[in-house]
Amino acid sequence: MQLTGELLIGQHAIKGTRDPVQAINPATGYKLEPVYNGGSSNEVEQACALAWQAFDQYRETSLEERAVFLETVADEIEAIGDALVERAVAETGLPEGRIQGERGRTCGQLRTFARVVRDGEWLDVRVDQAMPDRQPMPRTDLRQRHIGLGPVVVFGASNFPLAFSVAGGDTASALAAGCPVIVKAHGAHPGTSELVGRAIQKAVSRCNLPEGVFSLLYGSGRDVGTALVSDKRVKAAGFTGSRSGGMALWKVAQSRDEPIPFYAEMSSINPVFPLPEALKARGREMGKAFVGSLNMGAGQFCTNPGLVIAIKGEALETFKQAATEALADANAQTMLTPGISDAYREGVEHLSQRSGVTELGRGPTGEGAYTCQAGLYAASAQTFLADTELQDEVFGATSLIIECVDSDELAAVAEHLEGQLTATLQMDDADMDSARALVPILERKAGRILVNGWPTGVEVSDAMVHGGPFPATSDGRTTSVGTAAIKRFLRPVCYQNLPDELRPEALRESNPYQLKRLVDGKRED
Amino acid sequence: MQLTGELLIGQHAIKGTRDPVQAINPATGYKLEPVYNGGSSNEVEQACALAWQAFDQYRETSLEERAVFLETVADEIEAIGDALVERAVAETGLPEGRIQGERGRTCGQLRTFARVVRDGEWLDVRVDQAMPDRQPMPRTDLRQRHIGLGPVVVFGASNFPLAFSVAGGDTASALAAGCPVIVKAHGAHPGTSELVGRAIQKAVSRCNLPEGVFSLLYGSGRDVGTALVSDKRVKAAGFTGSRSGGMALWKVAQSRDEPIPFYAEMSSINPVFPLPEALKARGREMGKAFVGSLNMGAGQFCTNPGLVIAIKGEALETFKQAATEALADANAQTMLTPGISDAYREGVEHLSQRSGVTELGRGPTGEGAYTCQAGLYAASAQTFLADTELQDEVFGATSLIIECVDSDELAAVAEHLEGQLTATLQMDDADMDSARALVPILERKAGRILVNGWPTGVEVSDAMVHGGPFPATSDGRTTSVGTAAIKRFLRPVCYQNLPDELRPEALRESNPYQLKRLVDGKRED
Repeated sequence: MQLTGELLIGQHAIKGTRDPVQAINPATGYKLEPVYNGGSSNEVEQACALAWQAFDQYRETSLEERAVFLETVADEIEAIGDALVERAVAETGLPEGRIQGERGRTCGQLRTFARVVRDGEWLDVRVDQAMPDRQPMPRTDLRQRHIGLGPVVVFGASNFPLAFSVAGGDTASALAAGCPVIVKAHGAHPGTSELVGRAIQKAVSRCNLPEGVFSLLYGSGRDVGTALVSDKRVKAAGFTGSRSGGMALWKVAQSRDEPIPFYAEMSSINPVFPLPEALKARGREMGKAFVGSLNMGAGQFCTNPGLVIAIKGEALETFKQAATEALADANAQTMLTPGISDAYREGVEHLSQRSGVTELGRGPTGEGAYTCQAGLYAASAQTFLADTELQDEVFGATSLIIECVDSDELAAVAEHLEGQLTATLQMDDADMDSARALVPILERKAGRILVNGWPTGVEVSDAMVHGGPFPATSDGRTTSVGTAAIKRFLRPVCYQNLPDELRPEALRESNPYQLKRLVDGKRED
Repeated sequence: MQLTGELLIGQHAIKGTRDPVQAINPATGYKLEPVYNGGSSNEVEQACALAWQAFDQYRETSLEERAVFLETVADEIEAIGDALVERAVAETGLPEGRIQGERGRTCGQLRTFARVVRDGEWLDVRVDQAMPDRQPMPRTDLRQRHIGLGPVVVFGASNFPLAFSVAGGDTASALAAGCPVIVKAHGAHPGTSELVGRAIQKAVSRCNLPEGVFSLLYGSGRDVGTALVSDKRVKAAGFTGSRSGGMALWKVAQSRDEPIPFYAEMSSINPVFPLPEALKARGREMGKAFVGSLNMGAGQFCTNPGLVIAIKGEALETFKQAATEALADANAQTMLTPGISDAYREGVEHLSQRSGVTELGRGPTGEGAYTCQAGLYAASAQTFLADTELQDEVFGATSLIIECVDSDELAAVAEHLEGQLTATLQMDDADMDSARALVPILERKAGRILVNGWPTGVEVSDAMVHGGPFPATSDGRTTSVGTAAIKRFLRPVCYQNLPDELRPEALRESNPYQLKRLVDGKRED
């Protein structure tokens, strides 16, 4: 397919008129054609108007229709074929295998949400039957279901050009919830975005849905992003990116006449706790495996392990030595964009100059202009507790080891942590008591707790939580990965005493979706 | 029980040191003993510290322990006996029967949440079993449950001294979710608050729970309320009251270093749509019944019908005439406080002076100083569409009838509405098409849609939604009445690859709570 550089507004493709966005191949530094001119307030207006028009019809599609639509989006993305992989590789510098895997995950995610839509549990149907003879007051029939919040704006993320972008997690869960979606493409991969956007456009048309179910805009977060989040027809937004960018848009969402949910997944340093017995038993292997997780994808994951917290001693020295050695061989991979590369260098520089922070080692520098030189630093718990800036995320393959004098200090460091996406325990059976003391703290700090794994790698499944207390996200009550993500775009509505024909399908007496409803406090079998 | 005027901090009772709060009997204008001195930053600090200390233990109480605690609170409230009714009547001017009913509802609500806690569905347990042989990557065991957000601040409401106050809906759902609660008592009924607070204190002690599970503070919303919502150990808050008060505290919650969920139920005028055929068939009865709902409890309900929207014509004239006649007999009841009475008078005065608004009638003035003179006004749809101030809530028994020229204009008025707690259709079978056209609009506007009833009267049940889009509430994703309210105080946590003995009870292999879990995408039978 020939890329045209156009914005996709419903079923239309329109050339933008504002400042151009152009992808750069971070492996070569060359610009990639075509140029994507940003959208103006005109295109924002059109996309919002179409989304609003589409909402009432789209949210009342049957479960089957909506599921088929999600599956059709997946089919259409696969139908793009190699061109999608090639373009994404060129725009991101990520290896082909990674992009292929991400495509599989993206399409798998859409099909998983199709299953969730068909199951219908997300409707959370509750029926309180009328009790006309109840004393002192009769009860009228009450029924509850969930409906979509309204049009949703999704911000594409730089680090997952497919799985967290145009047809990524937020888009899949919002569409599953019955919400039209307007995507603000990330400027780092506009071509990949256009390809996927056109695939969704085709699926909308093939499924005979109202065109406003999907639009795709390019432009700066500050202009197009702010305009979208400010529009009164937009009722929620999903964002994955930096803390400064997320909080700026979050403030826009909260400053509207009608504040809206703004789900920003922003900043996490994902502490890893190698517990004493595990450290003794396998400090060397652990140090090596840790660097493998740290340097994966040049460390450009939300769940990258940016912090190691352990008790000082010989075993920790072994871990540090093994990690430092592994670091010397850690392949310097190309980072996603020149901007991310610059920010990484500045972040490492800032970290290395904090008082009390010592450098344990650096990885190879690599050959490209935008490669990521891995880094490992250490500081005492006292230093860490005294300097909140040591919790700032350095997006890339750099980590900081916090050395504690004893388990009390380790617990104090855990309590001092900001909210996280993940927290990881490396433990042996003999560490059970130490682990038991930490888990209650970590439950308050993180959305996901791991044992004897590494936080990178996020399963798309029912039990996954990719979320967590602020500042990991702006709203720890939900997840952005996994099937529970559908809940973030829903709200409950109660119907009191409606004639059966006026009730929505899901609430009819005949229970046409064969849902296991909560009827008079009992779950149907 | 002798009232002492003390703040309840955990198991302690402490005399406050700040500005005094003293109840006024609105029927007589006399002050009621004792004086309640407000809490200082010291008491706020103590209550927050105790709540924080209690959280980890309280949230891990077994389902049975927690359910028994909620039932014990209900028992202890009932054990207060007549003293509670007498004091609440004196402090609010509400009739004895109403207070008795509210006590029944409050205790019933606590027992209903005990049932919800035991059922355990709120845990939303999900298990994705390990697939060690999966290609290309193995899957590790993933399990999800929900835990409480942390200590919750609850603001007592003036209009429900029991059901929306110290042991009201927010307290019951927060305690059910495993969150310690700190209540900021409403200044209008401090004695009722102390009685109920001491009942909860006793229940905490009888159940051997950590004392910080509950505290009760007096003082101004501006001082004590702001201090509580600002405290970093507080993780959510529930509020029922005015839009200005709710939004002021909401802003505090959003301006913290760590923003927190702030559930404010604020402002709703609860439109009623008498549809044409119903109006023709029973305009007279409807007009009378409408005034009954309007004047109930002096109109001091969040769901009071403050707006009637209908198509002009003879049938509407009949409705108006019947309503105006009924109004002439509408008993002028005592309002809750001098402040509410003043605000009502000002609100009516403001409404009556808006351009295009005509007075249809006023009720009797009544004899007390703070009685509510009911009022009925009318305006054209054009007037309403042009003047957003006509959507301002007048808290009390006053309503505005909007006259539309046709069904298109009626739909335009519906679209123009702000978010509401409820929207009501009065309809006959022949109105089905008109109703079908309105329901999609009303679903976007309101948390509850009623047919052929009146919005006053909120059932505590599974299907109830007492919520709705802004400004009815600050967060339309939840409800403050009914069992689904437990969800507002929960967040999901995922446990990856934990040894079984390290898992929380609800996630153990043996499934000790016999929950119907979602296992590998299938709901257990």
